[in-house]
Amino acid sequence: MSLRVVGVDPGLTRCGLAVVDVSASRLVELVDVTVAGTPPGTPLDARLLAIANAIDAWLDTHKPDVLAIERVFAQVNVSTVIGTAQVTGIVITAAARRGIPVALHTPTEVKAAVTGSGQATKAAIGKMVAKICRLDEPPKPADAADAVALAIAHAWRGAAAGSNASASAASSSGSRQLTTAQRAWIAAEASAKHRAARR
Amino acid sequence: MSLRVVGVDPGLTRCGLAVVDVSASRLVELVDVTVAGTPPGTPLDARLLAIANAIDAWLDTHKPDVLAIERVFAQVNVSTVIGTAQVTGIVITAAARRGIPVALHTPTEVKAAVTGSGQATKAAIGKMVAKICRLDEPPKPADAADAVALAIAHAWRGAAAGSNASASAASSSGSRQLTTAQRAWIAAEASAKHRAARR
Repeated sequence: MSLRVVGVDPGLTRCGLAVVDVSASRLVELVDVTVAGTPPGTPLDARLLAIANAIDAWLDTHKPDVLAIERVFAQVNVSTVIGTAQVTGIVITAAARRGIPVALHTPTEVKAAVTGSGQATKAAIGKMVAKICRLDEPPKPADAADAVALAIAHAWRGAAAGSNASASAASSSGSRQLTTAQRAWIAAEASAKHRAARR
Repeated sequence: MSLRVVGVDPGLTRCGLAVVDVSASRLVELVDVTVAGTPPGTPLDARLLAIANAIDAWLDTHKPDVLAIERVFAQVNVSTVIGTAQVTGIVITAAARRGIPVALHTPTEVKAAVTGSGQATKAAIGKMVAKICRLDEPPKPADAADAVALAIAHAWRGAAAGSNASASAASSSGSRQLTTAQRAWIAAEASAKHRAARR
């Protein structure tokens, strides 16, 4: 019983794409990681189309249970925020077209989930990603490692955490629209925790 | 000889979509206008998908020569800029998939092109759109009128103005990648101006 999570670190120049399988006992298997993107000199429409094609192929190849993507804030990185938000729009739509639920996580949530500290450096995140995935060294560039961290953070925080772009904002009860795979995984994870506690 | 322009006023709640045919003598025919979008309570992925489906259908139905969309700035409307940028990403990608060139225009450029003043009010824009398209009253809501204004502004400013998302930023000569339809229209427009000057 494992959950397949695609993690996306959105960007026009470098868009990190990762896919991990996470078992109910929290063991992480890195399935694949890459960086899509185009040089800054390329026309905007060609850049966005290249990323759209890359994410379409990524989802069709890996068929994830859920997609986790970084939440973009308007207040930071004013020079790149528009391009980054444009990419998030494309990625979320690509998932929605395939019925894949989407979860948004802030950088602080991801850092805290993977390193224990919301103020972790890029280097610390890379090291922890390598350790968790049992790699000899961190995935490179940093955008690749960040995409893996996002996917791990989503699985480890559990489907109950993070803000779910697929959940109805009108649903004040906090109940979320989980897929059958997500519900089965949550049950399996709870059972694994229970076994661990009894050891 | 006319140029078919789709104008898009991007937004998550209300996304204005217009299509106009503009003759070489600058006569504007409003072909169709609508507003796509979803209520704020809807999940984000469903909202983006609804707009993606609407723009796909709009482009397939109307087969424009060019798509003009408002340029988004990070500095203004911080609360809505992320959603608006996400929509622009989807719209530009939809055009790119179909080989339709994309042009970005600022609100000031649009106001100036349609009303003569870069500081025009929404009401003034609506009135001028009605006058230019020979309508009894402005298209409603304002997002619909804004989308028409964008399309008109693009055609009237000419393909040489505005910033072209499809043109290579690396091309410092300023030459642009025009479609055959655009080149033919520019030639026809120049010829129409010439005839007017001789009258």
